[in-house]
Amino acid sequence: MAASPVGPEIERLIAALSRLPGLGPRSARRAALALIKKKESLLLPLAEAARQAAEAARICSECGNIDSRDPCSICADPSRDASTIVVVEDVGDLWALERAAATKARYHVLGGVLAPLDGIGPEELNIAGLIARAAAPEVCEVILAVNATVEGQTTAHYLTDELASSGVKVTRLAHGVPVGGELDYLDEGTLAAAMRQRTAF
Amino acid sequence: MAASPVGPEIERLIAALSRLPGLGPRSARRAALALIKKKESLLLPLAEAARQAAEAARICSECGNIDSRDPCSICADPSRDASTIVVVEDVGDLWALERAAATKARYHVLGGVLAPLDGIGPEELNIAGLIARAAAPEVCEVILAVNATVEGQTTAHYLTDELASSGVKVTRLAHGVPVGGELDYLDEGTLAAAMRQRTAF
Repeated sequence: MAASPVGPEIERLIAALSRLPGLGPRSARRAALALIKKKESLLLPLAEAARQAAEAARICSECGNIDSRDPCSICADPSRDASTIVVVEDVGDLWALERAAATKARYHVLGGVLAPLDGIGPEELNIAGLIARAAAPEVCEVILAVNATVEGQTTAHYLTDELASSGVKVTRLAHGVPVGGELDYLDEGTLAAAMRQRTAF
Repeated sequence: MAASPVGPEIERLIAALSRLPGLGPRSARRAALALIKKKESLLLPLAEAARQAAEAARICSECGNIDSRDPCSICADPSRDASTIVVVEDVGDLWALERAAATKARYHVLGGVLAPLDGIGPEELNIAGLIARAAAPEVCEVILAVNATVEGQTTAHYLTDELASSGVKVTRLAHGVPVGGELDYLDEGTLAAAMRQRTAF
């Protein structure tokens, strides 16, 4: 491997890009080149957008969402249903549910899932905040929208136990056939769940 | 699709990232989230690196390479062989050859390939500059390191004709089996070329 043919400023851009999830060293190099070629329309806007986002982004002290305001625009929106809290593992899950317009409820971001082997216990997650919020008189339902993984389901069971004393209804997302999914390609667990939880046509 | 759950600054970062080659809208969102979560170690360094690269990057007036200096570090390096010019389509190809330490010669970046249907004729490429450079007395060989595509080969033929009067030797990269490649997965054209151009063992 020869010395880099580009200056240190360009090398640093490549290095910064290669740390993005989804970009390897090779594609980071390609991306850097594309950015530099369109300096005015791509590279400078990216620099400015990154600077402004770094300045603006804050974590909502209520739900844990990332937004440019605290409380976030969802928690601050009076039209959102305050009687229901949708519990998600990560901010990315919250954004996904919002894009799907799946709920008008509010959210609670755990910041991960229980993983005792990795040293992630209840104290490492934003569980105390959830228990406190669920104890508020207006809250009737907590929807556990955690991932359908072993860790996600373990966390869901733990939260169900913790929330039992608060008297709120605890629900979880339905399992079943993804919209557009083909049965032949689905795993047995999903098919069995979809059959068990079948609904009237 | 609901309104975005994030502020305009974060939306702009997602938009800027989604214009990177290799990142779609979905992965741009994921990348933005990862960046914002590691504001100090990822997002701010990216902003700074992008700003500095935009400021530093310039196109070499000699060969067309992108570097933080003009002439670029390759053209300015007296240890590089000035008797040979390696012609590439794009700066990315130049960087790839440098990473492979494939040559100690100098380069010439065409900035594309001939594509008459797309309105890219000889005037749109940096061909006049190549002819001028090849006419210099110290230049003995021009290596056409264009892609092995139809457009690349058309461009190579055109350049061969243009360079005929200059008296320099015009060569091209060898075709053959990629290192580590398996014959069973290679196309017939490559195999036939590898057989034709076989070398002594």
